[in-house]
Amino acid sequence: MTSPEPTPDATTNSSAGYGAHPPGTKTPADVPTDVPADLIITRCTALVHDDHEQIGFVEDATIVVRGGRIESVIAGPVDVDVPAAEHTVRIDARGQVAMPGLVNCHTHAPMVTLRGIAEDLPIEEWFNDFAWPIESNLQEKDVELGARLACAEMIRGGVTCFADHYFSMDTVAAVTAESGMRANLGQAFFSSQGAEGREQSLEFALRHRDTADGRITTSLAPHAPYTVEDADLAATARLAREHGLLVHIHASENRDQADTSLARHGRTPIEVLADAGLLDTDLLIAHGTGIMERDLPVLARATGRIAVASAPRGYLKFAWPTTTPVRALRELGIPVGLATDGAASNSSLDVWESMALTALVQKFTESDPRLLTSRQALHHATLQSARAVGLGEEIGSLAPGRRADIILVDVSGPHTQPVHDLAATLVHSARAGDVRTTIVDGRVIMRDRELLTLDVPAIVREMNERMPALIDRSHGKRIQDYDT
Amino acid sequence: MTSPEPTPDATTNSSAGYGAHPPGTKTPADVPTDVPADLIITRCTALVHDDHEQIGFVEDATIVVRGGRIESVIAGPVDVDVPAAEHTVRIDARGQVAMPGLVNCHTHAPMVTLRGIAEDLPIEEWFNDFAWPIESNLQEKDVELGARLACAEMIRGGVTCFADHYFSMDTVAAVTAESGMRANLGQAFFSSQGAEGREQSLEFALRHRDTADGRITTSLAPHAPYTVEDADLAATARLAREHGLLVHIHASENRDQADTSLARHGRTPIEVLADAGLLDTDLLIAHGTGIMERDLPVLARATGRIAVASAPRGYLKFAWPTTTPVRALRELGIPVGLATDGAASNSSLDVWESMALTALVQKFTESDPRLLTSRQALHHATLQSARAVGLGEEIGSLAPGRRADIILVDVSGPHTQPVHDLAATLVHSARAGDVRTTIVDGRVIMRDRELLTLDVPAIVREMNERMPALIDRSHGKRIQDYDT
Repeated sequence: MTSPEPTPDATTNSSAGYGAHPPGTKTPADVPTDVPADLIITRCTALVHDDHEQIGFVEDATIVVRGGRIESVIAGPVDVDVPAAEHTVRIDARGQVAMPGLVNCHTHAPMVTLRGIAEDLPIEEWFNDFAWPIESNLQEKDVELGARLACAEMIRGGVTCFADHYFSMDTVAAVTAESGMRANLGQAFFSSQGAEGREQSLEFALRHRDTADGRITTSLAPHAPYTVEDADLAATARLAREHGLLVHIHASENRDQADTSLARHGRTPIEVLADAGLLDTDLLIAHGTGIMERDLPVLARATGRIAVASAPRGYLKFAWPTTTPVRALRELGIPVGLATDGAASNSSLDVWESMALTALVQKFTESDPRLLTSRQALHHATLQSARAVGLGEEIGSLAPGRRADIILVDVSGPHTQPVHDLAATLVHSARAGDVRTTIVDGRVIMRDRELLTLDVPAIVREMNERMPALIDRSHGKRIQDYDT
Repeated sequence: MTSPEPTPDATTNSSAGYGAHPPGTKTPADVPTDVPADLIITRCTALVHDDHEQIGFVEDATIVVRGGRIESVIAGPVDVDVPAAEHTVRIDARGQVAMPGLVNCHTHAPMVTLRGIAEDLPIEEWFNDFAWPIESNLQEKDVELGARLACAEMIRGGVTCFADHYFSMDTVAAVTAESGMRANLGQAFFSSQGAEGREQSLEFALRHRDTADGRITTSLAPHAPYTVEDADLAATARLAREHGLLVHIHASENRDQADTSLARHGRTPIEVLADAGLLDTDLLIAHGTGIMERDLPVLARATGRIAVASAPRGYLKFAWPTTTPVRALRELGIPVGLATDGAASNSSLDVWESMALTALVQKFTESDPRLLTSRQALHHATLQSARAVGLGEEIGSLAPGRRADIILVDVSGPHTQPVHDLAATLVHSARAGDVRTTIVDGRVIMRDRELLTLDVPAIVREMNERMPALIDRSHGKRIQDYDT
């Protein structure tokens, strides 16, 4: 098990930055003068982490990007003469905050196609009467258009990386490459598919890992302990260790599932994962709102890097009785990344909203307004989310050497002024729509709200033409039954 | 007591409109051809209510405004030849939904100045250590700048009307007039001010009612039962009846207040209001999350028009154990309007978010995903909010004869596509930032996101200059103690 997460700034409301030379930043004298930069962002306020992962802000910062990575975050109001070339992109980011791009740690991107089709329903009816019957109609083209629209929505909301768990993932991989986003992709499987499902999930993971110039990483993606049998879970754990792959799975999604698992098998879903050896692999657990007290020592004994992705909007919408137990997981050192789940249930891929809701819902469910401060919420949104998708060393922080996944957030609007505490402004006042510019691997994929890699009207037009065939449920089929 | 609220469309997810001629709309033949219109909105999808207050959508609608009121909502894709003049404003609203402007049913607009200054704290510390010490420094100019910034934020978020409960309300009235918004304004008072507070509240209400071309209405505004004595509450009730004024008060804000009231006085805050005669006036109760089972028969016996304003974000943030009991109030026929409270506690004046959170939090706290459907949320946002601020006959619906308080909401963005159920799209996928155009009394005050009545950079500049003096707490004073 990893050591406990630090508790970033649980007690202070100070908005002070680090002064002119925060940890991990450079002075102008450190900047090489001979090689031209690819991207130079000037005059922003930069969100950075110190050596204890405390969040601070560098005023009037210059960020230099070279070869897809952050080379330096230069502090202070000095005018730095960074060497540039014809290809160098310059962004004057006055009035904007530069922060690590958001990570959607668990989604089913192509399901945006079904956004709003099954509202105000319990999860059983949502799955059995809508999602799974409709998904039996799903064609590659539907997945392609859905993934494109989802990428457009995420880029506009400041999401630079997503962990996707769905079908037809070759298509999602192609769209990810085209969109310029970063993703961890897993081909979902059920035991009802026989051995073939698991094999395809592995083939997908091996074929696509480190593609799209390294922006695509992959997972093995068993659906859930209630749809994948113990033998398949154990085989997945062996394959993950053999190939060094992350495993991404729904588990203990809600209290009902945990109760049913206990009643049927005498074990919680987390105990099922442990028995299968999955807690000794790198594991991303989606939701975990049904994690029980008895699961905590089981998780504490894990030898793999375990993380949980939390999508609080959906839990409220389905009226689940509990939410992801963030405090208990923090005490175990288990990162909790932010997520939206699919838009067919959640209505949205708005990770910014997930950040705010995580703070608000944790305060409410733990009955403590001091819990989950804005800085803690930003820690979930940055380093913890990066770790959750297996990229803890690559993204999640504006630090030299990390991939240049950066968003620029406008805080000059009337709803974000004045700024007494920039962390609070970002979490509780700013919105996804305040993201002006989205950058992945140093490449600008949205500038001043204009998407540079995707054509939304064209996607929507084609999607709507295909809709009648997609949503037809007269065949009476479904791809699976929801019966935990 | 009024008759029970209808339950708008609790069971169907249909997004169908009413066809070519929905209730309350006209055919092209009904449009007078001799008098030019002031404003013509074409090609929008219009949100309308039928005779049973069910919400539907009219496709390809034309809305004609004359003399500050909606003259007609014309259904169907016909090109209507509405008489226009040189002064006629025309808006092509393709891809946009026209709906009644949102109403912020309880706020303290000037408190935006303190947004983010006291975060992650219980309400006692928030009041006693921050809000009330700082408010003892408050100058007219601070209130003016705060109110301006708040109006800017609300207009950009599609809010056309707000109910404000604060100090220096002459200033807030002047800013309301300048901003072009509609408001119900009340000068707050405590019994600690002696009779003067109550008298000033009345003088304010009489002096400003029906000013700003009728856009300003007024209330008497006792702070709360724990800061205003029984005799003052009773006097307020008499004055309200004598002058035909609404009373706007904080009451049973949270469970602690209700418990303390019971322990100290043997009565709940609602019973205190009843004993003072305030339930026999038109009464707007802010929050009411502490309303108890025993309060329900008391509310049922009320002879005044009672309403409750709910600001769910703040309840989560303060980790209050309960939220406004919307279902119980609905059964009593008591409208629940949407609100944000002040931005110093709530971080935001985003009524759109209040709409979504009301739906999500009610599902969660009532443990029922079928509760508070999107159409019900829109009913709270429109007719119920209009009733809450005493304007149930004037605003809240796009119906002929109502004041032309209209917002145009862009649903073409990737986060709001595709549309399977427009009510769900509006409540759960759209955001405040999707409001493109805001119209009050037929006057456009924001067009394509550009504010036409307020200059945000100038407001912020001046506000920041005054900030050090405003937030100084070294004097050790406060305007009041929070001790329920």
